[in-house]
Amino acid sequence: MDSRDNLSVVIHKKNDLRVEQSVLPEEPKAYEVQLASHTVGICGSDVHFWKDGKIDKWVINEPIVTGHESSATIVKVGSLVKNLKVGDRVSVEPGVGCMACQTCKDGFYNLCPDVTFHAVPPTGGALRRYYNHSSAFCHKLPENMSYAEGALMEPLAVAVYACKRANITEGSGQRVMVTGAGPVGLLTALAAKALGAQEVCILDINENRLKFAKEMGIEKTLLINTKLDTEALADEVVSLLGANPDITLECSGAESSLNLAIYVTKDGGNVVMVGLNHRKVTVSLASAACREVNLLGIKRYRHSFPLAIYLVGSGKLDVKPLITHRYRIEQALDAFETASSPTAGAIKVQIECFEQN
Amino acid sequence: MDSRDNLSVVIHKKNDLRVEQSVLPEEPKAYEVQLASHTVGICGSDVHFWKDGKIDKWVINEPIVTGHESSATIVKVGSLVKNLKVGDRVSVEPGVGCMACQTCKDGFYNLCPDVTFHAVPPTGGALRRYYNHSSAFCHKLPENMSYAEGALMEPLAVAVYACKRANITEGSGQRVMVTGAGPVGLLTALAAKALGAQEVCILDINENRLKFAKEMGIEKTLLINTKLDTEALADEVVSLLGANPDITLECSGAESSLNLAIYVTKDGGNVVMVGLNHRKVTVSLASAACREVNLLGIKRYRHSFPLAIYLVGSGKLDVKPLITHRYRIEQALDAFETASSPTAGAIKVQIECFEQN
Amino acid sequence: MDSRDNLSVVIHKKNDLRVEQSVLPEEPKAYEVQLASHTVGICGSDVHFWKDGKIDKWVINEPIVTGHESSATIVKVGSLVKNLKVGDRVSVEPGVGCMACQTCKDGFYNLCPDVTFHAVPPTGGALRRYYNHSSAFCHKLPENMSYAEGALMEPLAVAVYACKRANITEGSGQRVMVTGAGPVGLLTALAAKALGAQEVCILDINENRLKFAKEMGIEKTLLINTKLDTEALADEVVSLLGANPDITLECSGAESSLNLAIYVTKDGGNVVMVGLNHRKVTVSLASAACREVNLLGIKRYRHSFPLAIYLVGSGKLDVKPLITHRYRIEQALDAFETASSPTAGAIKVQIECFEQN
Amino acid sequence: MDSRDNLSVVIHKKNDLRVEQSVLPEEPKAYEVQLASHTVGICGSDVHFWKDGKIDKWVINEPIVTGHESSATIVKVGSLVKNLKVGDRVSVEPGVGCMACQTCKDGFYNLCPDVTFHAVPPTGGALRRYYNHSSAFCHKLPENMSYAEGALMEPLAVAVYACKRANITEGSGQRVMVTGAGPVGLLTALAAKALGAQEVCILDINENRLKFAKEMGIEKTLLINTKLDTEALADEVVSLLGANPDITLECSGAESSLNLAIYVTKDGGNVVMVGLNHRKVTVSLASAACREVNLLGIKRYRHSFPLAIYLVGSGKLDVKPLITHRYRIEQALDAFETASSPTAGAIKVQIECFEQN
Repeated sequence: MDSRDNLSVVIHKKNDLRVEQSVLPEEPKAYEVQLASHTVGICGSDVHFWKDGKIDKWVINEPIVTGHESSATIVKVGSLVKNLKVGDRVSVEPGVGCMACQTCKDGFYNLCPDVTFHAVPPTGGALRRYYNHSSAFCHKLPENMSYAEGALMEPLAVAVYACKRANITEGSGQRVMVTGAGPVGLLTALAAKALGAQEVCILDINENRLKFAKEMGIEKTLLINTKLDTEALADEVVSLLGANPDITLECSGAESSLNLAIYVTKDGGNVVMVGLNHRKVTVSLASAACREVNLLGIKRYRHSFPLAIYLVGSGKLDVKPLITHRYRIEQALDAFETASSPTAGAIKVQIECFEQN
Repeated sequence: MDSRDNLSVVIHKKNDLRVEQSVLPEEPKAYEVQLASHTVGICGSDVHFWKDGKIDKWVINEPIVTGHESSATIVKVGSLVKNLKVGDRVSVEPGVGCMACQTCKDGFYNLCPDVTFHAVPPTGGALRRYYNHSSAFCHKLPENMSYAEGALMEPLAVAVYACKRANITEGSGQRVMVTGAGPVGLLTALAAKALGAQEVCILDINENRLKFAKEMGIEKTLLINTKLDTEALADEVVSLLGANPDITLECSGAESSLNLAIYVTKDGGNVVMVGLNHRKVTVSLASAACREVNLLGIKRYRHSFPLAIYLVGSGKLDVKPLITHRYRIEQALDAFETASSPTAGAIKVQIECFEQN
Repeated sequence: MDSRDNLSVVIHKKNDLRVEQSVLPEEPKAYEVQLASHTVGICGSDVHFWKDGKIDKWVINEPIVTGHESSATIVKVGSLVKNLKVGDRVSVEPGVGCMACQTCKDGFYNLCPDVTFHAVPPTGGALRRYYNHSSAFCHKLPENMSYAEGALMEPLAVAVYACKRANITEGSGQRVMVTGAGPVGLLTALAAKALGAQEVCILDINENRLKFAKEMGIEKTLLINTKLDTEALADEVVSLLGANPDITLECSGAESSLNLAIYVTKDGGNVVMVGLNHRKVTVSLASAACREVNLLGIKRYRHSFPLAIYLVGSGKLDVKPLITHRYRIEQALDAFETASSPTAGAIKVQIECFEQN
Repeated sequence: MDSRDNLSVVIHKKNDLRVEQSVLPEEPKAYEVQLASHTVGICGSDVHFWKDGKIDKWVINEPIVTGHESSATIVKVGSLVKNLKVGDRVSVEPGVGCMACQTCKDGFYNLCPDVTFHAVPPTGGALRRYYNHSSAFCHKLPENMSYAEGALMEPLAVAVYACKRANITEGSGQRVMVTGAGPVGLLTALAAKALGAQEVCILDINENRLKFAKEMGIEKTLLINTKLDTEALADEVVSLLGANPDITLECSGAESSLNLAIYVTKDGGNVVMVGLNHRKVTVSLASAACREVNLLGIKRYRHSFPLAIYLVGSGKLDVKPLITHRYRIEQALDAFETASSPTAGAIKVQIECFEQN
């Protein structure tokens, strides 16, 4: 019998988050590892599930462990695991394909019809002391990266994947517009720069966010004057970047930003839609269509953790300033309150699953 | 002195189309050829320029020769032309890049900032007896193809390019939905089939168009019941195709079709926006974004004439039934009246530039 | 207890092939299926293992079931299998990746360091009545395809993969030279044609093989005059194809053919090395290097069974004439003798694992 | 009448190099610019033409201006030039496609059948004070780059193109072996590192070259013990890199290096053949073939100058230490003597076309 405890953070239903014991995982299967969680970040979607009990068609009908931005230590390895050993420090990729269907066989595991994802019902999340995971979805951290950084690889993977989908290529002189300077927009702008975009500008309606973006190294910022129309805003962007953007990474979901993106992006350019706005938007699709401006979607990410880890490990991108708050797992409710408070000034709130010495 | 006449069809201004002489072309430059036009098809945009005097930002301020769907015979070749000789029968690609900028150097000549296009001001069109053209944009017709077919390669190039952008790949079991069964939708559906889509269905609100599509070999047709919502229409499409489409080729520009396309296309699938609707549309972009459904534009086409010619020359695609009317150049005004009449039953109206023996 | 017998064809050691019982498979795991073998073809490598007891570094140290070209019927399905059901008729892809390493995750399962392959030690083969297999590596046969055809999908997958690696693309007017008209060369030439090469020629030193190639529809054949040098042979090829080949599919492994391939293939063209010659060869690599002629290898194939099945199922490629001999499993030794006899006139020898009614 | 002089370096025939006047260029054509040469580097091939009067099939039958590694200032622009203006400082790409054939239209201008290249008969070179060039093949230098660096972009373009052909990708953890530490091998190793290879090692039989490579920042060097066989050398490489190389950039042309490259490169890896050895070599092609190791050629480069300039301009790669000697155009014969002397210790010898103030 396993005498370890498995303290976990569980959403029981809407507005009902509890710190409690959950069952310890079974022995890992042939290609699985068993992980001791170290640090888990709180994402907007975690807060959303807590406050609403659902997101879109995913409904919490039974208690579910939350958390999907995690770093951990390997404590057991399955019989066929070759890439990892006990003691390895890893960042955990939360979306796991079945690896048996044609989609997975082709390498598009994020599009697998049977993909599971941490803390999306009915799959349990990472905010517990022990859990098992597919070894192919655990990525070793270099020695110079902390667990706190490791737990930020998940949102950075979104940013990196958006840049790759947009075809950001070093040395090709690309100009990039990022709309929305929240955590995802910020990481996306930083990733665009680290991956070799020549010029990157970021837009927001919130001055503080732009100030922080500047501190993080995104020098070209534009405070959106909401009285301006698309054409006038576009002029400001062109003036800031020196030319129309080759690529837009749309991280706000706002209708006005989507129209700006379509209007200002160069013929043949890519607009990656990172931000989501679950209402319908009214946009000039024909204007995009006839200029070969492509509106590309991303379903989370695939094959993006290694590049995210590389960017941080090599010093090209510093994620540490994003971490504004850290809590112990016993204080998880406080952590979630902070993450959800508009006045707390939180960018990224993280939780440590064990007492650190 | 050149004693040949150069009868031409010229739009002088809105509602003012004339058959008249224009100046004969100069000697072709080093990489140009001189063409004797044979057959020129009338496109909706030609009619539009005639009836409105403009399309979008392109305005007819001076008289301009119309026509951009043409086949011709080489009558002179420039000093450095190697791929063509006098007497060759060709289909003429009307959009010519400068071939000196980085965009052209990279192979994306349709996106060249200085691209010229037949009959788009200020560039003259092909509906005249003689004109010069870049030799790189004249495509030899195989012996078994007529000039009438050759003049249809331009709209077929649009269809072929849309299919290539959508990544239609033979033998991969793709299901394809085409929305809109006008000439472009029809050619697009035929191209999708010829290029190896496993299942192709076509949707329209007009029963006659679907009947014609069936006669052309697109067996799966769906008459859109405009009272149905997107979900109900999607169910009909899934039932018709046996599964959700991997690819949608949207050829109507209708808001409802764009919403259907976004809703019903598989995760990771492509929607190519072929049809244009110059008003704004209200659509669920977030639904496309989070399922990695991509909305791709096309700016006319590039590198698509050879494949269009191959499909017809090899017998994989028959365009002849689309040609419903043929006129002599002297009757060009009648031809345009027919092409613009909603009751004439015209699909493709073509004009011959010389008397045929 | 399972009362079924499991008659199998087992290589015990060099020159020791036996038809005998082997153990019945266990219950299929979650993503496995259990197969009743129907037809298994004999490949040159099977004969080689029998006659030599080894190929390269793979040595038969313990008795091993032979056979890797097989079609079968699903008799049991694992708990998580969704793509197949009991009774389905399938072609079996014999090379299975671990699906847990980065290489597999990227979609390159044939390059997996832990890939297993039927009848390559220590992995047992398909020439037995019952065995388990990964469901992701069983490909459903359409109704109009026989089990005999299904068992030919494995060598056809090699041919299809070679063509894909060479970038054979329909409608692009490619000229293709195939060197070597044995079973693999023949299938490769047929695949090149079916996949859209404009001109295909095949070369051999054996007149009978070329005659058979002609009967199979490869009209352009060239009997190699071994007294000619590379330049003279190249002239014959250019004359036959109308121009230098864009692509060469080298299926002989002969040094002279490799030199011809390097010499005659166009600048920027691909030479795929399908044939193997385990001695060193003396070739002009610099001539390939400075003209951007690429010498591409293939490690069996990946993602090629569906396209192979499509080509046969759609009637674009007929493999049936290749099947010259069929035996029952009890006569497997005779079958192997026929397959290995230079005078038997065998192209493809197949074995049926059950008595057919 | 143009009063400027046009001092030039002209190869008249084998061993006959002269500094003399040549005719001034005509007015630039529509898409041409007129250049005042600033710095021109001497390449091994320039020396070869001087000493031998020919390379392969290219023979000097008439006097020809030499030089193809040049930087220059724009002094005139043709009527349609938009990307450049008088006074711009540029690096000159010497290989110009016709931009009218299908190959050029597709973007593969280096493979154009009618490509011209500076100083390859019958096309004159860049080692003269004034000449005209296609504007699309002149690349603006950033302010922080000198003309001397600009004249090194040509050999760096070879290195960059080799890395791109090999698919060197930042952040993917690739290990790269470079064989041969001459100027091209060195630039190739530096480019591999700058483009994101994780580990790069370089091999040579000359200790001084390796010492210089180390000074340039390539820390992992291996002095080839010519008594070792391929297997033993491979062990040393694996030990140096920590694993088999994913990619080999072969810059020596030596048979033993080609065999090492084939033997040691990982399954599915690329070997780019940069070095040339015009004798035949005896190699194990089958070993490459069956492990999907690809032997890729490069015909000079395409689309590589912008990336070369970016790497230097951004400080990721320092080419200055390669420049060991500089001469004035009047001393061109001395410069060529130095470049061709095995004892002069020259890495890159450059010539300035005008007196610098």
